[in-house]
Amino acid sequence: MLNESVSAAVDSEMKGLISDLQTLIRQPSISAKKQGLNECASLVSQIMVKAGIKSEVLNLDRHDSNQNQEAIAPIVYGEAKSKMNPDAKTLLFYNHYDVQPEEPVEFWDTDPFSGKVEGNYIYGRGSADDKGELITRIKAVEYFLKETGDVPCNIKFIIEGEEEIGSVNIEKYLSKYRQKLAADWVIWEFGYVDEKNKPIISLGMKGLLYVELVAKGPSQDVHSSLAVLIENPAWRLVEALNIIRNRDGKILIKDWYDEVREFTSDELDSISREPFDEQEFKRQYGVDKFVNNARGIEARKALVGMPTCNIAGLVTGYVGQGAKTVLPSTAMAKIDFRLVPDMDPTRQFQRLIKHLNNYGFGGDIDIKFIHGESSSRTPINQPFVKQVQDAATEAFGTEPIVSVSSSGTGPMHSFVKMLGAPCVSVGSTSSYARIHSPNEFARIDLLNKATKCMAAIIEKFGKQ
Amino acid sequence: MLNESVSAAVDSEMKGLISDLQTLIRQPSISAKKQGLNECASLVSQIMVKAGIKSEVLNLDRHDSNQNQEAIAPIVYGEAKSKMNPDAKTLLFYNHYDVQPEEPVEFWDTDPFSGKVEGNYIYGRGSADDKGELITRIKAVEYFLKETGDVPCNIKFIIEGEEEIGSVNIEKYLSKYRQKLAADWVIWEFGYVDEKNKPIISLGMKGLLYVELVAKGPSQDVHSSLAVLIENPAWRLVEALNIIRNRDGKILIKDWYDEVREFTSDELDSISREPFDEQEFKRQYGVDKFVNNARGIEARKALVGMPTCNIAGLVTGYVGQGAKTVLPSTAMAKIDFRLVPDMDPTRQFQRLIKHLNNYGFGGDIDIKFIHGESSSRTPINQPFVKQVQDAATEAFGTEPIVSVSSSGTGPMHSFVKMLGAPCVSVGSTSSYARIHSPNEFARIDLLNKATKCMAAIIEKFGKQ
Repeated sequence: MLNESVSAAVDSEMKGLISDLQTLIRQPSISAKKQGLNECASLVSQIMVKAGIKSEVLNLDRHDSNQNQEAIAPIVYGEAKSKMNPDAKTLLFYNHYDVQPEEPVEFWDTDPFSGKVEGNYIYGRGSADDKGELITRIKAVEYFLKETGDVPCNIKFIIEGEEEIGSVNIEKYLSKYRQKLAADWVIWEFGYVDEKNKPIISLGMKGLLYVELVAKGPSQDVHSSLAVLIENPAWRLVEALNIIRNRDGKILIKDWYDEVREFTSDELDSISREPFDEQEFKRQYGVDKFVNNARGIEARKALVGMPTCNIAGLVTGYVGQGAKTVLPSTAMAKIDFRLVPDMDPTRQFQRLIKHLNNYGFGGDIDIKFIHGESSSRTPINQPFVKQVQDAATEAFGTEPIVSVSSSGTGPMHSFVKMLGAPCVSVGSTSSYARIHSPNEFARIDLLNKATKCMAAIIEKFGKQ
Repeated sequence: MLNESVSAAVDSEMKGLISDLQTLIRQPSISAKKQGLNECASLVSQIMVKAGIKSEVLNLDRHDSNQNQEAIAPIVYGEAKSKMNPDAKTLLFYNHYDVQPEEPVEFWDTDPFSGKVEGNYIYGRGSADDKGELITRIKAVEYFLKETGDVPCNIKFIIEGEEEIGSVNIEKYLSKYRQKLAADWVIWEFGYVDEKNKPIISLGMKGLLYVELVAKGPSQDVHSSLAVLIENPAWRLVEALNIIRNRDGKILIKDWYDEVREFTSDELDSISREPFDEQEFKRQYGVDKFVNNARGIEARKALVGMPTCNIAGLVTGYVGQGAKTVLPSTAMAKIDFRLVPDMDPTRQFQRLIKHLNNYGFGGDIDIKFIHGESSSRTPINQPFVKQVQDAATEAFGTEPIVSVSSSGTGPMHSFVKMLGAPCVSVGSTSSYARIHSPNEFARIDLLNKATKCMAAIIEKFGKQ
C-alpha cells in the first residue's frame, strides 16, 4: 500500500505542484521552432535539484551527431539512489520538456503560455503533454525524500527536448549515456485517463513516417488566367494525394500493409475488454461517424493497431481574405503515416516514392523524408505490468484499463533496443485534454492521483 | 497623325510621369484588405486636378448597396470637355486604383511599395496593374491640355477601387451615375505588349466564378493519432477537388460547358493570325509543356476562349517548420473558374453545388460564393477597333495584334450592359510584367509609347 505520509504530502502540497507546473508552462519550449529549449532544460534541472534529486544537463558532442551541435536540444538527467536498498533495481522515468507549437493562436481562449488555473483545470501548451506528466513524477520522488529521507528503489530520470519533433537524437543519447541510464523498467512519458476517470496503462506505441510533398509548377506565381495553359502545382498535389489513400482510409501504396503484425489472442482478448464509449468519443470531437464506418471492436482494433495516413498540413497560393486570383508556383503537403509493428519507416518511405513514380509524379513532386520512427509493444504478461496495474488501482481508486498499444507515437522502440528495458505508460492526461491543440489543459485532480500512482509504483518496485 | 507637340511633351516629361506613378505605388491600396483605398482615391483625384482634369470622388449611399457604406471603395471621376468640339463624342477611360495584396512578401527583391526605378524598369505592386496604365491616360490628357489648351474630343475617367476583388460595386456605380458616365466608347483598364514589343488590342474578357470550399471535420484540431477513426477534412477536400477537374484540365461538373459560345470564322481567323511564341512563353514561366499538352492553335484558342478551374489557395493544419502531427478541424480551398461567353456565373455555381452533392460532399463541405462576373466580347468588325489599331501602330511603330479576348477577367460585361458602350483594351503592360506576383514591374519605354497611343486615340476620336 502507498506510504501514508507521502500520500498526505501529495494532498497538502498541491499548491507547490501547480506553481512548479506553471513555471514550466510559462517557459515556451517549442522544439519545432528551436525556441526556449536550453532555458527550459535548466528550469527542469533546477526544479529537480529543489526536489532533492541529483540532476545534470547532458549534451551530445559534435562527433556524436551529424547535426550542428547547437541545434540539438540537451537532455536533463536526474537520479535518486536508495540508501536503504542500494542494490534495488532501477526505475527510469522518461519524459520530455519540449512542447508542440502553440498555433493556431487565435483559437486559444487564453495566452497559451499563461498556465492559467480555473477550478480543476490548468490551461496552457504543455500543461498535459508533457510538463504536467513530468511534474507528477518529480513530486512523487520529492515527497518520498522529504517524508522518509529516502526512496525505496533506485530512480533515474531522462527528460528530453525533442519528443515533439520525433525524438531525433534520443538513440544517440541512449547510446552515449547507456551506462548512466541503465535501468530495469521504464515508466513512459504519458498516460491517459478515460472519460470515466479510469487510468489507461498502455504497453505500446505506434511508429511514424513524416514526409513533405512539394509540387513544383511555374518558376514564379502567375496570374491565374494562365491556368488554361500552365499546370497548377496545387492540382498536381491534389492528384498525388488522391492516389495515396482512398475514401475508406485505406492506404493505396503497394505492399504498404505487408509487415503488419497480427494481434495475439491475449492482445485481442485485452482489446475486446477495453471499455470504449463510442458515443462520448464522437460527442467530444463533434463527429457523427468514424472513418470507414468503423464500430465496436473494429474501432478499438483500429486505434490500437491500424496504420494511418493523415494530412497534417496543406498550403499553397493566397489564403487571406478576399478573392485573389493566382496560380501558385509551389504547393506543399505534410503527411504523417502512423506505423505499427513490424513496419519499417525507411522501407515504407521507399514504397511511397515508388508509388508516386509509378503514377507519374516523379518529375514534379519532391518527396522529403522528415522523420521516421519504429513502433513497439511490451508483452502483456510481463510481471511489472501487474505492479503498475495495482499501483494505479490504489491511487485512482478504480481498476485501470490495460491497453495493448497507444494510438500515438514515441521512441519506445529505442529504449527497448538500447537499454533492454521494457516500457509501460501510465499518467495523468485526460483523453480529452486537447494535447497538440488550442486550449490544452491538465486536470488538477488527475495530477494529484497520478502523483500518488507514481509514489505507489516506486514503493512496489522497492519491494522486489 | 499624332500631334507633334503633344508627342514631344510625352518624351520630355517622362520624369513627371514616373514621379506621379511612384507617388501612386507608394500609397498601398489593397482592396482585398480594405487598406488605403480612400487615401489612394484622393491621391488620384489630386493628380488629375494637377493635370487640368476636372475631378471628384464619388460614393454610393447606404441605400445604393446592401453593403456597409464604409466598406465600399469610392470611385474617382474625371472629365475634360472639348472646347473646340463640344458636340464631339465621348471617350471613357476605365481604370482602377486598387491593387492585389503584396504577398508573398519574401519573394520580392525590393519593398513592394517602393516604386524603385532600375534602368528601364519601375518596380512595385500596381506599377503595371493598374497604376501604370492609369498614369499614361492621365498624362495623355494633361499634355493635350498643356500643349493645345484643349482636347479634341470629350473625355471622361472612371477609376474604381474594387477591380481586384471583382468590381463588386461597379454596376451600382454605373447605374447611379449613368448620365454622368455616359460615353460612346470605353478604353479598357489594361493592355498587354508582347515579347516582340507588339501591343495587343483585346476585345473581350473572360468571366469569373470565385468560390471557397470549406471542409469541416472534428470540432477542434485533434492529435493526428486519432486519424484512424476521425475523418480528416483535408482528405475530404482533396477528394472533392479531385472530382471537379481531371488531369487534362477538363472540368468534370455536369453541363459545365453547355453555354460555351463557338468562335465565329472571323474570330478564328484572327486567333490563327495572332503570333504566339510558345517556346518563349514556356521559358518565361519555367514550364516545359502546357495543360493537356496543348500546342499551336489549340493553345491560342485555350487562352482566348477556354474555361478554367484554378486552385488559387489551399490551407489546413500546420504549415510551419518541423513535424507537427495534427488532424485539423477545417480545410479550405479557394477556386477561381474563368468563364467565357455565354456562361452565367450564378448558373455555374448551382451546377457546382449539385455536382458536389451528387458525389456525397453536401454534408461536410461548405461552398461559398465569393464573386461572379460574366464575360464579354466586342465584335471584331466595329470601326472604333480600326481607329485604336491605327493609333497603336503610330505610337508603338509596329502593327498591333488584335486579340478576340483577353484570358483575364474584368467587368466589361457591366459597361456594355449599363452604358451600351463597347470596350477595347490597349495599354502598356509587358506580357511578363508579373502582375499579381512578386517583383511586378512596368517598362518605362512602354509607358512612353502607351501615353502616345492614348494621345493618338484621343486625336482620332476628335475627328469623327
